[in-house]
Amino acid sequence: MNNDCILLDYGSGGKASQRLITDIFVRHFSNPVLNRLDDAALLNPVAGPLAMSTDGYTVDPVEFPGGTIGSLAVHGTVNDVAMLGARPQYLSCAFILEEGLPLELLERIVADMAAAAKKADVLIVTGDTKVVPRGAADKIFITTTGLGEVIASPAPSGSSAKAGDAVLVSGTVGDHGLTVLSRREGLSLASDVKSDSAPLNHMVKDLILTVGEIHCLRDPTRGGLATTLNEIAVQSGLVCTLEEEAIPVRPNVAAGCAVLGLDPLYLANEGKLICILPQDRAEAALAVMRGHPEGKEAKRIGTISSPGGISRPGQVVLQTRLGGKRLLGMLEGEQLPRIC
Amino acid sequence: MNNDCILLDYGSGGKASQRLITDIFVRHFSNPVLNRLDDAALLNPVAGPLAMSTDGYTVDPVEFPGGTIGSLAVHGTVNDVAMLGARPQYLSCAFILEEGLPLELLERIVADMAAAAKKADVLIVTGDTKVVPRGAADKIFITTTGLGEVIASPAPSGSSAKAGDAVLVSGTVGDHGLTVLSRREGLSLASDVKSDSAPLNHMVKDLILTVGEIHCLRDPTRGGLATTLNEIAVQSGLVCTLEEEAIPVRPNVAAGCAVLGLDPLYLANEGKLICILPQDRAEAALAVMRGHPEGKEAKRIGTISSPGGISRPGQVVLQTRLGGKRLLGMLEGEQLPRIC
Repeated sequence: MNNDCILLDYGSGGKASQRLITDIFVRHFSNPVLNRLDDAALLNPVAGPLAMSTDGYTVDPVEFPGGTIGSLAVHGTVNDVAMLGARPQYLSCAFILEEGLPLELLERIVADMAAAAKKADVLIVTGDTKVVPRGAADKIFITTTGLGEVIASPAPSGSSAKAGDAVLVSGTVGDHGLTVLSRREGLSLASDVKSDSAPLNHMVKDLILTVGEIHCLRDPTRGGLATTLNEIAVQSGLVCTLEEEAIPVRPNVAAGCAVLGLDPLYLANEGKLICILPQDRAEAALAVMRGHPEGKEAKRIGTISSPGGISRPGQVVLQTRLGGKRLLGMLEGEQLPRIC
Repeated sequence: MNNDCILLDYGSGGKASQRLITDIFVRHFSNPVLNRLDDAALLNPVAGPLAMSTDGYTVDPVEFPGGTIGSLAVHGTVNDVAMLGARPQYLSCAFILEEGLPLELLERIVADMAAAAKKADVLIVTGDTKVVPRGAADKIFITTTGLGEVIASPAPSGSSAKAGDAVLVSGTVGDHGLTVLSRREGLSLASDVKSDSAPLNHMVKDLILTVGEIHCLRDPTRGGLATTLNEIAVQSGLVCTLEEEAIPVRPNVAAGCAVLGLDPLYLANEGKLICILPQDRAEAALAVMRGHPEGKEAKRIGTISSPGGISRPGQVVLQTRLGGKRLLGMLEGEQLPRIC
């Protein structure tokens, strides 16, 4: 019975740790860099500037329709590196495991991570495992750090939006947030929703190499589309105006949000990006996005403009379906803990 | 009252998250790379091969004589990068915070991290914060990932020990492990012990540039000196023989271990390194180590040899004070959880 769970000595650095590393991590993640098993990974030189990003994943539940904490930990960090106009190449992963975690569950999560890394074409090159006593953590937390070569010049930045730019989104919003919430709370109303968790690095590479001149790239994760656009508006000192009827939301996600009193514009996404670039490149960018399975529903949803009239720098304005205007603030207060 | 603690919405990605980032993290870690606050850090190109390492820190208690979880998270990862013969340059940090964590405690930990990063001469370039509900984590976990340029050629490796090599240790062993354990359990017997947590990268740089031809560099953290030497012996397929009386152990650490039935050779160290190199370079290496405050008590403690007679590849043999021989195995079973 005990052999089927994580025990405290799996994190001791001794023989049990070695077995866990060999039997689970190396078996699934195997590659020549990782397999050296030194304290640090030895990586070939990278030619250009580097992008580095880290994220801790604490999602509850650890398995949900469309993914697990393992694939989420790969996609989320790969996407953050890509958003700097970079080609993600290497990932590290640090596991914090609760004593008693079923080994079978750990192995499912690790296998899902390995599959996600393969799909994103990144190598997991180094890692760490700590085990904490029962009750000191909830099942499993994973922190991944990604490294890649910046291929866009200049690199996109939240502060680089320009007045006149188009605002594009690569697909529907709110899917991940509603899925995790409804699964956690056992809500049947949203039984047909699914996380959008996916790697976006291949799409980003094509956008950079084919379309070029991308001012901002961001993945609207925690805080959702509205919060991410607020950050960009603030960093750029401009105004972002969105057309409500252009923002893609799946009907079942809209319905689930209506029942629960949630706004899909503030829900986390894990496989979507916001791309801000000159209007005359918008159609080319949409065509590139739609050529990828994750971007089939890409849409132009708004524009960037200089402050003026009643609008102030850093504001996000929603043109509603009924013709009115609504200010979309940054997320205030707790909406959903442990969503990623 | 509530304003003095971490609340769930500090991890929401919204306004409260922004305040936490600005008021605590950016204030203490401030540097031009971090201050851009994009999803990933944009780093200048690095000329040589890269070293990348990650570790999760879950130490209990989070403050102890000689450091905090914050300085430990910097030193541990800086040292792991350095052990590849590299110059650590950049760190990422991901925080997992428990709802209710006092802000004052978080700020002490963050300030201690900032001071450690300054001393080690590395920049904290990107980070992440998640907040989990009360009871889903114990106070604070920190995962750091380090990146640096490899300056040794070839890079030292656990598999590169050679028969005839000398085994050096940069100072006393067991200090960190005994300190954390005694502080956690409130044991007065070890009131005068202190963690050895320290950055070793400056010492490593001098060893590489001044002495050269270093075959193995390892920091004996979890599992201690004995377990780390076992890993090296196994990876190199050789035998390591240690002189018990040459191994530096502080009298108060030896006494504390005797009372508690612990072996200092298996206790974690956080500011010590093992250096394996040709005998004729050993004195030069010891002189370099002793020139750094962390290496004043550096000692030659053993030799590497080919298997033969009764010794088999991968074994670590201790020549005891009484003239006998004892096989030092790898750590078996749980000795101390949450030691780092």
